[in-house]
Amino acid sequence: MTPDPDLLSNVRSERVRAVRSLGRRAVRQRQGRFVVEGPQGVRELLRYAPGSARDVYLTPAAADRYAELVSLAGEAGVPVRACTDQVLAAMSDTPHPQGVLAVASPVDVPLGEALAAATDGAGFVVVLTNVRDPGNAGTVIRGADAFGASAVLVSDASVDVYNPKVVRSTVGSLFHLPLVLGVPVPDLLQACRVHGLRLLAADGGGGTMLPDADLTAPHAWVLGNEAWGLPEEVLDQCDDVVAVPIVRAESLNLAMAATVCLHASSAAR
Amino acid sequence: MTPDPDLLSNVRSERVRAVRSLGRRAVRQRQGRFVVEGPQGVRELLRYAPGSARDVYLTPAAADRYAELVSLAGEAGVPVRACTDQVLAAMSDTPHPQGVLAVASPVDVPLGEALAAATDGAGFVVVLTNVRDPGNAGTVIRGADAFGASAVLVSDASVDVYNPKVVRSTVGSLFHLPLVLGVPVPDLLQACRVHGLRLLAADGGGGTMLPDADLTAPHAWVLGNEAWGLPEEVLDQCDDVVAVPIVRAESLNLAMAATVCLHASSAAR
Repeated sequence: MTPDPDLLSNVRSERVRAVRSLGRRAVRQRQGRFVVEGPQGVRELLRYAPGSARDVYLTPAAADRYAELVSLAGEAGVPVRACTDQVLAAMSDTPHPQGVLAVASPVDVPLGEALAAATDGAGFVVVLTNVRDPGNAGTVIRGADAFGASAVLVSDASVDVYNPKVVRSTVGSLFHLPLVLGVPVPDLLQACRVHGLRLLAADGGGGTMLPDADLTAPHAWVLGNEAWGLPEEVLDQCDDVVAVPIVRAESLNLAMAATVCLHASSAAR
Repeated sequence: MTPDPDLLSNVRSERVRAVRSLGRRAVRQRQGRFVVEGPQGVRELLRYAPGSARDVYLTPAAADRYAELVSLAGEAGVPVRACTDQVLAAMSDTPHPQGVLAVASPVDVPLGEALAAATDGAGFVVVLTNVRDPGNAGTVIRGADAFGASAVLVSDASVDVYNPKVVRSTVGSLFHLPLVLGVPVPDLLQACRVHGLRLLAADGGGGTMLPDADLTAPHAWVLGNEAWGLPEEVLDQCDDVVAVPIVRAESLNLAMAATVCLHASSAAR
Protein backbone atom coordinates (compact mmCIF):
# COMPACT_ATOMS: atom_id res chain seq x y z
CA MET A 1 0.00 0.00 0.00
CA THR A 2 1.29 3.44 -0.89
CA PRO A 3 1.31 5.70 2.15
CA ASP A 4 -1.24 8.53 1.92
CA PRO A 5 0.84 11.71 1.56
CA ASP A 6 -1.86 13.72 3.36
CA LEU A 7 -1.99 11.38 6.36
CA LEU A 8 -0.50 13.12 9.40
CA SER A 9 1.94 10.60 10.80
CA ASN A 10 4.66 12.56 12.58
CA VAL A 11 3.89 12.51 16.30
CA ARG A 12 6.61 15.11 16.88
CA SER A 13 5.27 17.66 14.43
CA GLU A 14 4.57 21.25 15.40
CA ARG A 15 0.87 20.69 14.85
CA VAL A 16 0.67 17.69 17.16
CA ARG A 17 2.57 19.56 19.86
CA ALA A 18 0.27 22.57 19.46
CA VAL A 19 -2.90 20.51 19.89
CA ARG A 20 -1.41 18.57 22.77
CA SER A 21 -0.47 21.79 24.55
CA LEU A 22 -4.17 22.74 24.72
CA GLY A 23 -4.35 20.35 27.66
CA ARG A 24 -2.87 23.24 29.66
CA ARG A 25 -5.18 26.03 30.80
CA ALA A 26 -2.70 28.84 30.16
CA VAL A 27 -2.24 27.68 26.57
CA ARG A 28 -5.99 27.39 26.02
CA GLN A 29 -6.48 30.92 27.26
CA ARG A 30 -3.62 32.34 25.22
CA GLN A 31 -4.65 30.57 22.02
CA GLY A 32 -8.41 30.82 22.47
CA ARG A 33 -8.73 27.15 21.56
CA PHE A 34 -9.76 23.92 23.25
CA VAL A 35 -9.98 20.25 22.36
CA VAL A 36 -13.09 18.10 21.92
CA GLU A 37 -12.48 14.35 21.97
CA GLY A 38 -14.62 11.45 20.84
CA PRO A 39 -17.28 11.06 18.16
CA GLN A 40 -20.27 12.24 20.17
CA GLY A 41 -18.62 15.42 21.43
CA VAL A 42 -17.30 16.29 17.97
CA ARG A 43 -20.68 15.58 16.37
CA GLU A 44 -22.49 17.88 18.79
CA LEU A 45 -19.85 20.58 18.25
CA LEU A 46 -20.37 20.39 14.48
CA ARG A 47 -24.15 20.36 14.83
CA TYR A 48 -24.71 22.98 17.54
CA ALA A 49 -21.64 25.22 17.35
CA PRO A 50 -20.24 24.76 13.84
CA GLY A 51 -18.86 28.29 13.86
CA SER A 52 -16.56 27.35 16.73
CA ALA A 53 -15.08 24.26 15.07
CA ARG A 54 -11.59 24.92 13.70
CA ASP A 55 -10.17 21.54 12.72
CA VAL A 56 -11.32 17.94 12.85
CA TYR A 57 -8.78 15.11 13.12
CA LEU A 58 -9.82 11.57 12.26
CA THR A 59 -8.05 8.27 11.81
CA PRO A 60 -8.93 6.54 8.52
CA ALA A 61 -10.89 3.89 10.48
CA ALA A 62 -12.87 6.57 12.33
CA ALA A 63 -13.53 8.44 9.06
CA ASP A 64 -15.15 5.23 7.75
CA ARG A 65 -17.03 4.55 10.94
CA TYR A 66 -18.24 8.13 11.54
CA ALA A 67 -18.87 9.26 7.97
CA GLU A 68 -21.50 11.65 9.35
CA LEU A 69 -18.73 13.70 10.98
CA VAL A 70 -16.96 14.15 7.66
CA SER A 71 -20.12 15.42 6.00
CA LEU A 72 -21.05 17.67 8.94
CA ALA A 73 -17.55 19.17 8.85
CA GLY A 74 -17.88 19.64 5.09
CA GLU A 75 -21.18 21.50 5.49
CA ALA A 76 -19.62 23.70 8.17
CA GLY A 77 -16.52 24.39 6.08
CA VAL A 78 -14.27 22.87 8.73
CA PRO A 79 -11.06 21.22 7.50
CA VAL A 80 -10.84 17.48 8.16
CA ARG A 81 -7.39 15.98 8.48
CA ALA A 82 -6.58 12.30 8.41
CA CYS A 83 -4.01 11.15 10.94
CA THR A 84 -2.59 7.95 12.34
CA ASP A 85 -3.74 6.43 15.63
CA GLN A 86 -0.39 7.46 17.08
CA VAL A 87 -0.84 11.10 16.09
CA LEU A 88 -4.34 11.17 17.51
CA ALA A 89 -3.20 9.62 20.78
CA ALA A 90 -0.31 12.12 20.97
CA MET A 91 -2.71 15.04 20.50
CA SER A 92 -5.16 13.75 23.06
CA ASP A 93 -5.55 13.96 26.80
CA THR A 94 -6.88 10.40 26.86
CA PRO A 95 -5.21 7.21 25.63
CA HIS A 96 -8.43 6.22 23.77
CA PRO A 97 -9.90 9.22 21.95
CA GLN A 98 -11.89 6.82 19.72
CA GLY A 99 -10.17 8.07 16.60
CA VAL A 100 -11.77 11.54 16.60
CA LEU A 101 -10.71 14.92 17.92
CA ALA A 102 -11.57 18.51 17.10
CA VAL A 103 -10.01 21.85 17.94
CA ALA A 104 -12.56 24.56 18.70
CA SER A 105 -12.73 28.19 19.73
CA PRO A 106 -14.65 29.13 22.89
CA VAL A 107 -18.43 28.74 22.86
CA ASP A 108 -19.29 30.78 25.95
CA VAL A 109 -21.52 33.84 25.66
CA PRO A 110 -21.92 37.08 27.63
CA LEU A 111 -23.94 36.89 30.85
CA GLY A 112 -26.74 39.17 29.64
CA GLU A 113 -27.27 37.12 26.52
CA ALA A 114 -27.51 33.84 28.46
CA LEU A 115 -29.94 35.30 30.99
CA ALA A 116 -32.17 36.90 28.37
CA ALA A 117 -33.07 33.35 27.27
CA ALA A 118 -33.53 32.17 30.87
CA THR A 119 -36.36 34.50 31.86
CA ASP A 120 -38.57 33.15 29.12
CA GLY A 121 -41.49 31.49 30.99
CA ALA A 122 -40.67 29.12 33.84
CA GLY A 123 -37.06 28.67 32.87
CA PHE A 124 -34.23 27.89 35.23
CA VAL A 125 -30.48 28.22 35.13
CA VAL A 126 -27.61 26.52 36.93
CA VAL A 127 -24.89 28.49 38.72
CA LEU A 128 -21.63 26.67 39.48
CA THR A 129 -19.90 28.78 42.10
CA ASN A 130 -16.92 26.69 43.07
CA VAL A 131 -16.99 23.27 41.47
CA ARG A 132 -13.48 21.90 41.21
CA ASP A 133 -13.78 18.34 39.97
CA PRO A 134 -13.92 18.06 36.16
CA GLY A 135 -16.26 15.05 36.27
CA ASN A 136 -18.70 16.85 38.55
CA ALA A 137 -18.74 19.96 36.37
CA GLY A 138 -19.34 17.77 33.32
CA THR A 139 -22.14 15.84 35.01
CA VAL A 140 -23.89 19.06 36.08
CA ILE A 141 -23.68 20.47 32.55
CA ARG A 142 -25.08 17.18 31.21
CA GLY A 143 -27.92 17.34 33.74
CA ALA A 144 -28.65 20.97 32.85
CA ASP A 145 -28.93 19.88 29.24
CA ALA A 146 -31.00 16.77 29.98
CA PHE A 147 -33.50 18.62 32.14
CA GLY A 148 -33.83 21.69 29.95
CA ALA A 149 -32.01 24.41 31.88
CA SER A 150 -31.83 27.68 29.95
CA ALA A 151 -28.15 28.29 30.70
CA VAL A 152 -25.17 27.25 32.81
CA LEU A 153 -23.26 30.03 34.56
CA VAL A 154 -19.80 29.11 35.83
CA SER A 155 -17.92 31.36 38.25
CA ASP A 156 -14.28 32.34 37.91
CA ALA A 157 -13.43 30.14 40.93
CA SER A 158 -14.61 26.91 39.28
CA VAL A 159 -12.74 24.35 37.21
CA ASP A 160 -12.04 25.47 33.62
CA VAL A 161 -14.90 24.10 31.54
CA TYR A 162 -12.56 23.84 28.51
CA ASN A 163 -10.40 21.37 30.44
CA PRO A 164 -10.42 18.21 28.25
CA LYS A 165 -11.78 16.12 31.14
CA VAL A 166 -14.79 18.44 31.54
CA VAL A 167 -15.41 18.64 27.80
CA ARG A 168 -15.22 14.85 27.52
CA SER A 169 -17.56 14.25 30.43
CA THR A 170 -20.24 16.56 29.00
CA VAL A 171 -20.38 14.29 25.90
CA GLY A 172 -21.54 17.20 23.75
CA SER A 173 -23.97 18.83 26.21
CA LEU A 174 -21.52 21.73 26.40
CA PHE A 175 -22.71 22.81 22.96
CA HIS A 176 -26.45 22.50 23.60
CA LEU A 177 -27.13 25.43 25.88
CA PRO A 178 -25.74 28.92 26.58
CA LEU A 179 -22.67 28.81 28.77
CA VAL A 180 -21.18 31.73 30.71
CA LEU A 181 -17.66 31.48 32.10
CA GLY A 182 -15.27 33.32 34.36
CA VAL A 183 -17.64 35.72 36.13
CA PRO A 184 -17.20 36.33 39.88
CA VAL A 185 -19.92 34.76 42.06
CA PRO A 186 -21.40 38.06 43.35
CA ASP A 187 -21.82 39.33 39.79
CA LEU A 188 -23.53 36.07 38.74
CA LEU A 189 -25.97 36.23 41.64
CA GLN A 190 -26.68 39.93 41.10
CA ALA A 191 -27.36 39.38 37.39
CA CYS A 192 -29.72 36.48 38.13
CA ARG A 193 -31.61 38.66 40.58
CA VAL A 194 -31.85 41.55 38.12
CA HIS A 195 -33.29 39.13 35.56
CA GLY A 196 -36.01 38.11 38.02
CA LEU A 197 -34.69 34.66 38.91
CA ARG A 198 -35.24 33.32 42.42
CA LEU A 199 -31.93 32.16 43.85
CA LEU A 200 -32.15 28.63 45.25
CA ALA A 201 -29.06 27.33 47.02
CA ALA A 202 -28.71 23.54 46.87
CA ASP A 203 -27.33 22.60 50.28
CA GLY A 204 -27.69 19.45 52.37
CA GLY A 205 -28.24 21.63 55.44
CA GLY A 206 -31.06 23.61 53.84
CA GLY A 207 -34.27 24.27 55.78
CA THR A 208 -36.57 23.72 52.79
CA MET A 209 -36.94 20.17 51.53
CA LEU A 210 -36.94 19.83 47.75
CA PRO A 211 -40.60 18.74 47.47
CA ASP A 212 -41.59 21.95 49.30
CA ALA A 213 -39.44 24.30 47.19
CA ASP A 214 -41.20 26.67 44.82
CA LEU A 215 -39.95 25.69 41.37
CA THR A 216 -42.78 27.20 39.34
CA ALA A 217 -41.27 30.68 38.92
CA PRO A 218 -38.00 31.28 37.00
CA HIS A 219 -35.11 30.33 39.25
CA ALA A 220 -31.40 29.70 39.50
CA TRP A 221 -29.89 26.65 41.23
CA VAL A 222 -26.76 27.81 43.05
CA LEU A 223 -24.27 24.97 43.58
CA GLY A 224 -21.24 25.07 45.86
CA ASN A 225 -17.97 23.27 46.27
CA GLU A 226 -17.78 19.46 46.46
CA ALA A 227 -16.23 19.42 49.91
CA TRP A 228 -17.37 22.52 51.73
CA GLY A 229 -20.61 23.49 49.98
CA LEU A 230 -21.65 27.13 49.80
CA PRO A 231 -20.16 29.81 52.08
CA GLU A 232 -22.40 31.85 54.39
CA GLU A 233 -22.16 35.00 52.27
CA VAL A 234 -23.59 33.14 49.27
CA LEU A 235 -26.30 31.38 51.30
CA ASP A 236 -27.31 34.78 52.71
CA GLN A 237 -27.89 36.13 49.23
CA CYS A 238 -30.16 33.26 48.19
CA ASP A 239 -33.94 33.38 48.48
CA ASP A 240 -34.12 29.83 49.76
CA VAL A 241 -31.76 27.03 50.80
CA VAL A 242 -33.02 23.69 49.54
CA ALA A 243 -32.00 20.17 50.60
CA VAL A 244 -32.64 16.88 48.83
CA PRO A 245 -34.32 14.64 51.43
CA ILE A 246 -32.10 11.68 52.19
CA VAL A 247 -32.19 8.81 54.64
CA ARG A 248 -28.55 9.03 55.68
CA ALA A 249 -26.32 12.08 55.95
CA GLU A 250 -23.20 12.60 53.82
CA SER A 251 -24.39 10.14 51.26
CA LEU A 252 -25.12 12.38 48.27
CA ASN A 253 -22.36 14.07 46.36
CA LEU A 254 -22.65 17.39 44.56
CA ALA A 255 -23.39 15.92 41.13
CA MET A 256 -26.07 13.58 42.51
CA ALA A 257 -27.81 16.35 44.46
CA ALA A 258 -27.67 18.66 41.43
CA THR A 259 -29.13 15.93 39.21
CA VAL A 260 -32.10 15.47 41.55
CA CYS A 261 -32.70 19.24 41.87
CA LEU A 262 -32.55 19.83 38.10
CA HIS A 263 -34.88 16.91 37.51
CA ALA A 264 -37.34 18.46 39.99
CA SER A 265 -37.19 21.80 38.14
CA SER A 266 -37.87 20.02 34.89
CA ALA A 267 -40.79 18.10 36.40
CA ALA A 268 -42.28 21.35 37.79
CA ARG A 269 -42.49 23.00 34.36
CA MET B 1 13.57 12.60 68.07
CA THR B 2 13.93 8.88 68.64
CA PRO B 3 12.27 6.92 65.87
CA ASP B 4 9.18 5.02 67.04
CA PRO B 5 10.17 1.32 66.86
CA ASP B 6 6.55 0.35 66.13
CA LEU B 7 6.20 2.77 63.22
CA LEU B 8 6.03 0.80 59.96
CA SER B 9 8.53 2.51 57.70
CA ASN B 10 9.79 -0.13 55.26
CA VAL B 11 7.92 0.34 51.98
CA ARG B 12 9.35 -2.94 50.71
CA SER B 13 8.15 -5.06 53.59
CA GLU B 14 6.09 -8.21 53.10
CA ARG B 15 3.12 -6.52 54.79
CA VAL B 16 3.15 -3.50 52.49
CA ARG B 17 3.39 -5.73 49.45
CA ALA B 18 0.52 -7.89 50.71
CA VAL B 19 -1.80 -4.91 51.21
CA ARG B 20 -0.79 -3.38 47.90
CA SER B 21 -1.52 -6.64 46.09
CA LEU B 22 -5.18 -6.36 47.17
CA GLY B 23 -5.53 -3.88 44.31
CA ARG B 24 -5.77 -7.00 42.10
CA ARG B 25 -9.07 -8.85 41.91
CA ALA B 26 -7.53 -12.31 41.88
CA VAL B 27 -5.60 -11.57 45.07
CA ARG B 28 -8.69 -10.13 46.77
CA GLN B 29 -10.64 -13.27 45.94
CA ARG B 30 -7.86 -15.62 47.04
CA GLN B 31 -7.20 -13.79 50.29
CA GLY B 32 -10.79 -12.80 51.10
CA ARG B 33 -9.62 -9.27 51.87
CA PHE B 34 -10.09 -5.79 50.41
CA VAL B 35 -8.84 -2.29 51.13
CA VAL B 36 -10.80 0.69 52.43
CA GLU B 37 -9.09 4.06 51.98
CA GLY B 38 -9.72 7.43 53.58
CA PRO B 39 -11.11 8.50 56.95
CA GLN B 40 -14.81 8.43 56.07
CA GLY B 41 -14.74 4.96 54.52
CA VAL B 42 -12.72 3.53 57.42
CA ARG B 43 -15.00 5.20 59.99
CA GLU B 44 -18.12 3.70 58.39
CA LEU B 45 -16.44 0.28 58.20
CA LEU B 46 -15.63 0.43 61.93
CA ARG B 47 -19.12 1.68 62.80
CA TYR B 48 -21.30 -0.49 60.57
CA ALA B 49 -19.20 -3.57 59.88
CA PRO B 50 -16.68 -3.77 62.72
CA GLY B 51 -16.56 -7.55 62.46
CA SER B 52 -15.13 -7.23 58.95
CA ALA B 53 -12.30 -4.86 59.87
CA ARG B 54 -8.96 -6.67 60.08
CA ASP B 55 -6.31 -3.95 60.39
CA VAL B 56 -6.26 -0.17 60.42
CA TYR B 57 -3.19 1.73 59.20
CA LEU B 58 -2.73 5.36 60.14
CA THR B 59 0.04 7.91 59.82
CA PRO B 60 0.84 9.65 63.13
CA ALA B 61 -0.70 12.87 61.76
CA ALA B 62 -3.89 11.06 60.79
CA ALA B 63 -4.04 9.34 64.20
CA ASP B 64 -4.05 12.82 65.79
CA ARG B 65 -6.55 14.20 63.33
CA TYR B 66 -8.94 11.25 63.34
CA ALA B 67 -8.72 10.18 66.99
CA GLU B 68 -12.26 8.81 66.65
CA LEU B 69 -10.95 6.08 64.34
CA VAL B 70 -8.44 4.92 66.93
CA SER B 71 -11.13 4.64 69.58
CA LEU B 72 -13.61 2.95 67.22
CA ALA B 73 -10.92 0.42 66.28
CA GLY B 74 -10.17 -0.12 69.97
CA GLU B 75 -13.82 -0.82 70.73
CA ALA B 76 -13.99 -3.26 67.82
CA GLY B 77 -10.75 -4.98 68.86
CA VAL B 78 -9.13 -4.12 65.53
CA PRO B 79 -5.34 -3.64 65.59
CA VAL B 80 -4.20 -0.13 64.68
CA ARG B 81 -0.73 0.22 63.19
CA ALA B 82 1.18 3.45 62.79
CA CYS B 83 3.01 3.86 59.52
CA THR B 84 4.84 6.51 57.56
CA ASP B 85 3.24 8.49 54.72
CA GLN B 86 5.44 6.52 52.34
CA VAL B 87 4.22 3.16 53.63
CA LEU B 88 0.60 4.28 53.41
CA ALA B 89 1.08 5.54 49.86
CA ALA B 90 2.81 2.29 48.89
CA MET B 91 -0.11 0.25 50.27
CA SER B 92 -2.71 2.37 48.56
CA ASP B 93 -4.31 2.50 45.16
CA THR B 94 -4.43 6.29 45.34
CA PRO B 95 -1.54 8.74 45.78
CA HIS B 96 -3.48 10.59 48.51
CA PRO B 97 -5.15 8.11 50.87
CA GLN B 98 -5.47 10.90 53.50
CA GLY B 99 -3.33 9.01 55.96
CA VAL B 100 -5.83 6.23 56.67
CA LEU B 101 -6.40 2.77 55.27
CA ALA B 102 -8.02 -0.42 56.51
CA VAL B 103 -7.96 -4.03 55.39
CA ALA B 104 -11.33 -5.74 55.66
CA SER B 105 -12.94 -9.09 54.93
CA PRO B 106 -15.97 -9.21 52.61
CA VAL B 107 -19.21 -7.65 53.84
CA ASP B 108 -21.62 -9.16 51.30
CA VAL B 109 -24.45 -11.37 52.46
CA PRO B 110 -26.47 -14.23 50.91
CA LEU B 111 -29.24 -13.24 48.50
CA GLY B 112 -32.07 -14.58 50.67
CA GLU B 113 -30.89 -12.62 53.67
CA ALA B 114 -30.72 -9.34 51.75
CA LEU B 115 -34.16 -9.84 50.22
CA ALA B 116 -35.81 -10.78 53.50
CA ALA B 117 -35.15 -7.20 54.64
CA ALA B 118 -36.35 -5.74 51.33
CA THR B 119 -39.92 -7.01 51.42
CA ASP B 120 -40.60 -5.15 54.64
CA GLY B 121 -43.30 -2.59 53.71
CA ALA B 122 -42.71 -0.42 50.65
CA GLY B 123 -39.03 -1.22 50.37
CA PHE B 124 -37.03 -1.23 47.18
CA VAL B 125 -33.74 -2.72 46.09
CA VAL B 126 -31.23 -1.94 43.37
CA VAL B 127 -30.00 -4.55 40.91
CA LEU B 128 -26.77 -3.82 39.04
CA THR B 129 -26.72 -6.23 36.12
CA ASN B 130 -23.73 -5.14 34.12
CA VAL B 131 -22.20 -1.96 35.47
CA ARG B 132 -18.53 -1.78 34.52
CA ASP B 133 -17.29 1.63 35.60
CA PRO B 134 -16.11 1.75 39.22
CA GLY B 135 -17.28 5.33 39.70
CA ASN B 136 -20.76 4.51 38.44
CA ALA B 137 -21.07 1.48 40.69
CA GLY B 138 -19.93 3.58 43.65
CA THR B 139 -22.39 6.37 42.85
CA VAL B 140 -25.30 3.94 42.56
CA ILE B 141 -24.41 2.34 45.92
CA ARG B 142 -24.20 5.83 47.45
CA GLY B 143 -27.59 6.71 45.98
CA ALA B 144 -29.10 3.44 47.25
CA ASP B 145 -27.85 4.37 50.71
CA ALA B 146 -28.97 8.02 50.51
CA PHE B 147 -32.46 7.16 49.37
CA GLY B 148 -33.02 4.24 51.71
CA ALA B 149 -32.87 1.19 49.45
CA SER B 150 -33.11 -2.07 51.39
CA ALA B 151 -30.27 -3.76 49.53
CA VAL B 152 -27.96 -3.61 46.52
CA LEU B 153 -27.69 -6.75 44.40
CA VAL B 154 -24.72 -6.91 42.03
CA SER B 155 -24.53 -9.50 39.27
CA ASP B 156 -21.48 -11.58 38.46
CA ALA B 157 -20.99 -9.62 35.21
CA SER B 158 -20.50 -6.28 36.97
CA VAL B 159 -17.35 -4.56 38.20
CA ASP B 160 -15.93 -6.02 41.43
CA VAL B 161 -17.39 -3.92 44.23
CA TYR B 162 -14.23 -4.55 46.32
CA ASN B 163 -12.15 -2.79 43.67
CA PRO B 164 -10.47 0.08 45.59
CA LYS B 165 -11.97 2.63 43.17
CA VAL B 166 -15.51 1.41 43.89
CA VAL B 167 -14.93 1.22 47.63
CA ARG B 168 -13.48 4.74 47.64
CA SER B 169 -16.31 6.20 45.60
CA THR B 170 -18.97 4.77 47.95
CA VAL B 171 -17.39 6.81 50.80
CA GLY B 172 -18.65 4.31 53.37
CA SER B 173 -22.11 3.66 51.91
CA LEU B 174 -20.91 0.14 51.09
CA PHE B 175 -21.20 -0.68 54.80
CA HIS B 176 -24.64 0.82 55.37
CA LEU B 177 -26.90 -1.63 53.60
CA PRO B 178 -26.99 -5.33 52.69
CA LEU B 179 -24.93 -6.09 49.61
CA VAL B 180 -25.13 -9.21 47.46
CA LEU B 181 -22.35 -10.02 45.00
CA GLY B 182 -21.52 -12.39 42.19
CA VAL B 183 -24.96 -13.83 41.43
CA PRO B 184 -25.96 -14.36 37.75
CA VAL B 185 -28.60 -11.91 36.50
CA PRO B 186 -31.37 -14.51 35.92
CA ASP B 187 -31.01 -15.75 39.51
CA LEU B 188 -31.16 -12.17 40.87
CA LEU B 189 -34.33 -11.42 38.92
CA GLN B 190 -35.93 -14.71 39.87
CA ALA B 191 -35.20 -14.18 43.56
CA CYS B 192 -36.63 -10.65 43.47
CA ARG B 193 -39.79 -12.00 41.88
CA VAL B 194 -40.13 -14.79 44.44
CA HIS B 195 -39.84 -12.18 47.18
CA GLY B 196 -42.73 -10.22 45.67
CA LEU B 197 -40.74 -7.32 44.24
CA ARG B 198 -41.96 -5.71 41.01
CA LEU B 199 -39.09 -5.56 38.53
CA LEU B 200 -38.63 -2.06 37.09
CA ALA B 201 -36.04 -1.72 34.35
CA ALA B 202 -34.49 1.75 34.16
CA ASP B 203 -34.05 2.40 30.46
CA GLY B 204 -34.06 5.60 28.43
CA GLY B 205 -36.21 3.88 25.82
CA GLY B 206 -38.85 2.80 28.35
CA GLY B 207 -42.54 3.28 27.58
CA THR B 208 -43.46 4.36 31.11
CA MET B 209 -42.27 7.79 32.23
CA LEU B 210 -40.95 7.91 35.79
CA PRO B 211 -43.79 10.08 37.17
CA ASP B 212 -46.26 7.43 35.95
CA ALA B 213 -44.40 4.43 37.37
CA ASP B 214 -45.95 2.61 40.31
CA LEU B 215 -43.42 2.97 43.11
CA THR B 216 -45.76 2.33 46.02
CA ALA B 217 -45.39 -1.48 46.13
CA PRO B 218 -42.05 -3.17 46.92
CA HIS B 219 -39.89 -3.06 43.81
CA ALA B 220 -36.45 -3.62 42.34
CA TRP B 221 -34.70 -1.12 40.05
CA VAL B 222 -32.86 -3.10 37.39
CA LEU B 223 -29.91 -1.16 35.93
CA GLY B 224 -27.98 -2.08 32.80
CA ASN B 225 -24.62 -1.40 31.26
CA GLU B 226 -23.32 2.16 30.81
CA ALA B 227 -23.03 1.89 27.06
CA TRP B 228 -25.61 -0.59 25.87
CA GLY B 229 -28.24 -0.58 28.62
CA LEU B 230 -30.26 -3.73 29.33
CA PRO B 231 -30.50 -6.61 26.83
CA GLU B 232 -33.87 -7.72 25.49
CA GLU B 233 -33.97 -10.88 27.59
CA VAL B 234 -33.70 -8.84 30.78
CA LEU B 235 -36.23 -6.21 29.64
CA ASP B 236 -38.65 -9.03 28.82
CA GLN B 237 -38.48 -10.31 32.37
CA CYS B 238 -39.26 -6.93 33.93
CA ASP B 239 -42.78 -5.83 34.88
CA ASP B 240 -42.22 -2.33 33.53
CA VAL B 241 -39.57 -0.39 31.63
CA VAL B 242 -39.24 3.11 33.04
CA ALA B 243 -37.56 6.18 31.52
CA VAL B 244 -36.54 9.42 33.22
CA PRO B 245 -38.18 12.20 31.18
CA ILE B 246 -35.50 14.37 29.59
CA VAL B 247 -35.48 17.26 27.17
CA ARG B 248 -32.63 15.96 25.01
CA ALA B 249 -31.69 12.39 24.20
CA GLU B 250 -28.38 10.81 25.21
CA SER B 251 -27.84 13.37 27.91
CA LEU B 252 -28.24 11.29 31.08
CA ASN B 253 -25.68 8.71 32.09
CA LEU B 254 -26.41 5.57 34.07
CA ALA B 255 -25.50 7.00 37.46
CA MET B 256 -27.60 10.14 36.92
CA ALA B 257 -30.65 8.16 35.77
CA ALA B 258 -30.27 5.77 38.71
CA THR B 259 -30.01 8.70 41.14
CA VAL B 260 -33.26 10.19 39.86
CA CYS B 261 -35.08 6.83 39.96
CA LEU B 262 -33.93 6.02 43.49
CA HIS B 263 -34.90 9.50 44.66
CA ALA B 264 -38.38 8.93 43.19
CA SER B 265 -38.71 5.62 45.06
CA SER B 266 -37.70 7.35 48.26
CA ALA B 267 -40.19 10.17 47.66
CA ALA B 268 -42.98 7.63 47.02
CA ARG B 269 -42.59 5.96 50.41
